[in-house]
Amino acid sequence: MKEIMAVIRLNKIGETKQALLEENFPSFTGYKVMGRGKAKVSFELVAEEEAQGNVDAVLAEEISEAHRLVPKRLIDLIVHDDDVQRAVDAIIRANSTGHPGDGKIFILPVAEAFQVRTGESGEAVV
Amino acid sequence: MKEIMAVIRLNKIGETKQALLEENFPSFTGYKVMGRGKAKVSFELVAEEEAQGNVDAVLAEEISEAHRLVPKRLIDLIVHDDDVQRAVDAIIRANSTGHPGDGKIFILPVAEAFQVRTGESGEAVV
Amino acid sequence: MKEIMAVIRLNKIGETKQALLEENFPSFTGYKVMGRGKAKVSFELVAEEEAQGNVDAVLAEEISEAHRLVPKRLIDLIVHDDDVQRAVDAIIRANSTGHPGDGKIFILPVAEAFQVRTGESGEAVV
Repeated sequence: MKEIMAVIRLNKIGETKQALLEENFPSFTGYKVMGRGKAKVSFELVAEEEAQGNVDAVLAEEISEAHRLVPKRLIDLIVHDDDVQRAVDAIIRANSTGHPGDGKIFILPVAEAFQVRTGESGEAVV
Repeated sequence: MKEIMAVIRLNKIGETKQALLEENFPSFTGYKVMGRGKAKVSFELVAEEEAQGNVDAVLAEEISEAHRLVPKRLIDLIVHDDDVQRAVDAIIRANSTGHPGDGKIFILPVAEAFQVRTGESGEAVV
Repeated sequence: MKEIMAVIRLNKIGETKQALLEENFPSFTGYKVMGRGKAKVSFELVAEEEAQGNVDAVLAEEISEAHRLVPKRLIDLIVHDDDVQRAVDAIIRANSTGHPGDGKIFILPVAEAFQVRTGESGEAVV
């Protein structure tokens, strides 16, 4: 089992969900994070997000204008080893715009999984 | 060392905390996530959460009615290898209602741990 | 590749960002979590955070006064194996106040990384 951790643009959550669903990956969790990439920050993007009320105001004030963090979505997905590439391809397909800031995907090893309702463990849980 | 990542119902945080404390696991972090399980989404649950103001409105609007995400809590816990099963059992005990949506628990390997205050590393930090 | 997961004080995000930037680690994600350490909770700190409007009110109400959770920042960073110690040192330098609650740092193995824009994978992505 592997954890797929993808940091993507805020407005790509719907397309990403759809792409994963079409590849038969219905389960994931998502949350809002503040990201800082290697590239220069796009202030147009930040302004756009702020206009939509998407910015964590407390955090935004803590950091200097020059090193502004950008709000992003983090998607978390646990898949079987054999399904990693197919899920990664779906995420890339849904998120690649060709512009810096499209995001990154990290794959982490998962040692075990349990279903809370049944107490069941193993590959069948995923 | 292992990381225990549990996705549970929003209203189970208190009982989970208590169950972990009783087993001598006082330390953890928790955050709100949007989850999408394999099962059909329970719209009663979503409505209930919305009535309590628990829904991330921005995210909720981004996704279609048909594939609604459900707000969940994610609990993160680092434990010694020998304590994984005991912590998992405590989480299952506190969260198992017998209904779909009780959540899942994933175990990830942890390579090292550091205490910020002392700079100390190793098993003693956990 | 390794994931560095650091749980730090809310008000240390700016200094941490600066310390990482100086060591040439510009990329990371951050999010607000509710943390519960081994030590007794500092109610002064909680009150201070609440005065700043930083507390997740829903979560705060769910838990008893006696076992109050403290809002923290979680910083997530992916680095090359050879850079782990340098990044950890920077985080410790920025966050060590000598008081309990300075936080902890956990290192997790990362199996693979992908850049969404290019589809490129491997060490070069980090």
